[in-house]
Amino acid sequence: MRVRADLNISLDGFATTEGGTPDNPMGPDWEKITGAYVATRTFRARVFGDESGAGTTGLDNDYATRYFEGVGAEIMGAGMFGFHDAPEPAEWWGWWGDTPPFHVPVFVLTHQRSGSREMNGGTTFTFCSLAPREVLDVAREAAGGLDVRVGGGPSTVREFLADGLIDDLHVAIAPVLLGRGINLWEGLRGWGEGYRVVTEVAESGTTHVTWSRE
Amino acid sequence: MRVRADLNISLDGFATTEGGTPDNPMGPDWEKITGAYVATRTFRARVFGDESGAGTTGLDNDYATRYFEGVGAEIMGAGMFGFHDAPEPAEWWGWWGDTPPFHVPVFVLTHQRSGSREMNGGTTFTFCSLAPREVLDVAREAAGGLDVRVGGGPSTVREFLADGLIDDLHVAIAPVLLGRGINLWEGLRGWGEGYRVVTEVAESGTTHVTWSRE
Repeated sequence: MRVRADLNISLDGFATTEGGTPDNPMGPDWEKITGAYVATRTFRARVFGDESGAGTTGLDNDYATRYFEGVGAEIMGAGMFGFHDAPEPAEWWGWWGDTPPFHVPVFVLTHQRSGSREMNGGTTFTFCSLAPREVLDVAREAAGGLDVRVGGGPSTVREFLADGLIDDLHVAIAPVLLGRGINLWEGLRGWGEGYRVVTEVAESGTTHVTWSRE
Repeated sequence: MRVRADLNISLDGFATTEGGTPDNPMGPDWEKITGAYVATRTFRARVFGDESGAGTTGLDNDYATRYFEGVGAEIMGAGMFGFHDAPEPAEWWGWWGDTPPFHVPVFVLTHQRSGSREMNGGTTFTFCSLAPREVLDVAREAAGGLDVRVGGGPSTVREFLADGLIDDLHVAIAPVLLGRGINLWEGLRGWGEGYRVVTEVAESGTTHVTWSRE
């Protein structure tokens, strides 16, 4: 049972949703750092339900496949769920739709709501206001021996990294400079020392770096 | 004739000499980001004069070899020459020794000194207080049809990047997080759009990213 995190970031470390609008809630930068991932056959099948076999099948797809394997519970920050700074209407259940692509218990870190809600396809959102270590204990229990993923966003992942709670970190780095947003690496001087590091470059130009605690 | 820049940086974008002491002027982080480069056969021969054939010969060495090819003039910031914040004694000629490894005219951007000094081995230091575009005109003239390199440090390279003056940027990224120093990427949102980007990973785990203006 491992604690994993996977993020798409820019070369300058940003995993950003800056500049979002109602029409494009993730902002104009999002496609630049997730484009190669969204283009994979696995992502298209798992998230869009596209079973036509369309999509890329190279190294980016290998990582996408691994992304969806062996995860028994997920932790995410309020921003990734879809809570914004403003108070949200009580009927807002995030931007993941009726059948979120998680298919496991998901723990959403927020002060704005409590309780749980079962969605279609095996995803249950549980809202909780807990410290990283505490929510991890709950998620481990729920994962039934499988891995726990800290899904994002970058501030949430950074907190878990800083507390030494992540066993496997995978970042997919797009060769673009965003220069704004939330920087995953801020305040993490020396993180990863003593981890095994593997770096590979995909056909898309995306660099995949994975740190594994041994 | 191209204008080139090459830097060794950390994964979080730092090319740093923080924490330097008289015994270790580049600071404890320097070896972390330059270790793989310094270990190459080419670097050992060109900079240390080690002709024994010792050193690595893989992809890092291929890049090191290209580093030393085809450069007719070099531009560097005051920090890379060895000027510090404090006034330096008039007899201080930087930390590059009597036979600097450049072997071409070198233009040092500084307000602290003017004039030129010829060193052994073909290196001439010329001190000038000029804007990026202006010093580039002078360096181009001196390069005799070969490339001009903007050698560093990161603040100097960043200024030339921001002004759109670099045709080819190569960064060698070490898989470490330094979290302090001068960040090469600061303020460069969108830099490199329209450039061709090539990424390769060396045996050492160093990722080489090269942008080329077409």
